[in-house]
Amino acid sequence: MRTRVTEMFGIELPLFAFSHCRDVVAAVSRAGGMGVLGALYFTPEELETELAWIDAHTGGRPYGVDVVMPSSYAGAELGADSGEELQERLRALIPDGHRRFVDALLDGHGVPEAAGSDADRFLLGWTDATARPQVEVALKHPIGLLANALGAPPPDVVEQAHRHGVKVAGLASSRRHARKQCDAGVDVVVAQGTEAGGHTGEVSTMVLVPEAVDEAGAVPVLAAGGVGRGRQMAAGMALGAEGVWTGSVWLATEEADTPRGALEQILRASSSDTVRSRSMTGKPARMLRNDWTRAWEEEGSPGTLPMPLQFMLIADALRRVGRVRHPTLTPSPVGQIVGSMDRVKPCSQVVYELMEEFGEAVERLGRLADPR
Amino acid sequence: MRTRVTEMFGIELPLFAFSHCRDVVAAVSRAGGMGVLGALYFTPEELETELAWIDAHTGGRPYGVDVVMPSSYAGAELGADSGEELQERLRALIPDGHRRFVDALLDGHGVPEAAGSDADRFLLGWTDATARPQVEVALKHPIGLLANALGAPPPDVVEQAHRHGVKVAGLASSRRHARKQCDAGVDVVVAQGTEAGGHTGEVSTMVLVPEAVDEAGAVPVLAAGGVGRGRQMAAGMALGAEGVWTGSVWLATEEADTPRGALEQILRASSSDTVRSRSMTGKPARMLRNDWTRAWEEEGSPGTLPMPLQFMLIADALRRVGRVRHPTLTPSPVGQIVGSMDRVKPCSQVVYELMEEFGEAVERLGRLADPR
Repeated sequence: MRTRVTEMFGIELPLFAFSHCRDVVAAVSRAGGMGVLGALYFTPEELETELAWIDAHTGGRPYGVDVVMPSSYAGAELGADSGEELQERLRALIPDGHRRFVDALLDGHGVPEAAGSDADRFLLGWTDATARPQVEVALKHPIGLLANALGAPPPDVVEQAHRHGVKVAGLASSRRHARKQCDAGVDVVVAQGTEAGGHTGEVSTMVLVPEAVDEAGAVPVLAAGGVGRGRQMAAGMALGAEGVWTGSVWLATEEADTPRGALEQILRASSSDTVRSRSMTGKPARMLRNDWTRAWEEEGSPGTLPMPLQFMLIADALRRVGRVRHPTLTPSPVGQIVGSMDRVKPCSQVVYELMEEFGEAVERLGRLADPR
Repeated sequence: MRTRVTEMFGIELPLFAFSHCRDVVAAVSRAGGMGVLGALYFTPEELETELAWIDAHTGGRPYGVDVVMPSSYAGAELGADSGEELQERLRALIPDGHRRFVDALLDGHGVPEAAGSDADRFLLGWTDATARPQVEVALKHPIGLLANALGAPPPDVVEQAHRHGVKVAGLASSRRHARKQCDAGVDVVVAQGTEAGGHTGEVSTMVLVPEAVDEAGAVPVLAAGGVGRGRQMAAGMALGAEGVWTGSVWLATEEADTPRGALEQILRASSSDTVRSRSMTGKPARMLRNDWTRAWEEEGSPGTLPMPLQFMLIADALRRVGRVRHPTLTPSPVGQIVGSMDRVKPCSQVVYELMEEFGEAVERLGRLADPR
């Protein structure tokens, strides 16, 4: 296949695969697509390790890195000389009542207490200040793409990437976002509909992609949100996209490190079992509707805190829950395509089936449109 | 074009146009698609008038009628020998506090009181009992399609339609709904994503259509929700649909009787300006986010009532607001494609542009997939 993005990145298939798992990233790049590693949960040192591993396992095929530099977050105005100092100042903004709510929620579900704290660790990539060291690490590797997940990347980061010959992608969940990303100088706009897993807006992929394509003009657009199979890839490209950006579908692969409990919930869920909730990060993100999301909606909930405070608030809770593998008391980000994820496959098979169904869909559509 | 639905109905284009306005229905049928009249707001006598007019203005081309027979509604268990009796019993279920809230809301916006009441009239098509007379009227006309908007149609209605040689369509907003519609014996499933205007579920068109197609098997599926232009029609059919079902896009046509104030709001709105709200009928419906929808969400709202009580409750309010043409204090159902509706065109032009862009999208997709 040849589209503007396959040309831009020298890849065979206009298929981008976002994952926090290096094995998935490498596997999709090897299969002809473009794996993109979510850097969010890694310290700079850990990220260095992950990327070195990917370099050694992609056979020179291109891959990308995704960071989170939200254009707005609580405490951004505080300023700080270091990530540690910012962390300290932010921690002071978390109300005690919120801490008590989370503790009581876990106690109520019989989750034992755990020593130590991950709260500091979990601020990590959620701010401009803490994401920059990740960018520094990423640009020392032969990456082809740097993506920013929340809002337009800062101008100097775009310049820095371009100086390294690295293309920049920005996620957009509205026509206005697409404009801002283009104005910031991105090379690719990822137009992500509300059906996507993780942080997501309200406009559906069907509606958003044509708007983003019209707005982006010469900048190519990838369709994201609701893309997990070939018919959806064909639809995304029929809407005017040059390729697709996928995420959820890789959670149910042999290469993914999805925790067993979460995986079981995912394989069982229907497309109606997700909800947009602020309960993980403070910004709306789509995840499985479960005990965790319900607790934040029910009476007695103190309401969620703004980014990055919410994630700092719940960091220790996630660790406690993770230790006992309580699969329904933890945020489980996934998109609406979760309904079609019903067994675990190797990444190469997902790619193969996706492209096969894509081909069939395109051929069928051509036949319907012109029955001669 | 030739698909299973063009064959089934003897139409040129697999393009279904839902409208409450007979002029739109006739115009789309004349243009080669299939107009479908929403019968909801008409008494049986009025519906007879509308359909006679359509018969005289479609030159023998097929058209359809859409009724609302919800599979569940408040008071269904009350039973009643007549629509009037049912109405009487339902009216008694509306709390006074709700009436006071609506009155205060309108008073607060300076809307003058109005004599008389439309409350009885507005129960109309919202129940099985009151929709049946509409079906009786519709089946006396040469309609090609009877569609049911909320849940599976009762078995005897399906049989009755089939005896008249009329095909039956059922709307589905989840995979489970699609199964129920097929089990009820419908001839066409309309898989409608959350981005649609009016009553709508939570799953997006991108995710829902492939699921509905797989579930429906031999029963053809139309893609609905987010379809207002050719690229979206191509996408819907790439997802496996045999055609598309549209609605919102016809509100901004020369033939439509959309009130001027509402039309101005529609032309101005972006795709981010809609919300799913129960404030019109008691079931979630997508409409413009405005003073009306906000009032029901804000503090002091008594919460909405179940169908059909909510619409009975607000019927007189709608009349009061309509008299002073207050465009932001009235529910204005429209889908997310409202963002691309920026001027008023004749229906024939909408059809022409839609099919032209459809053709371009299909051609482009074929070229990208196979660049030889």
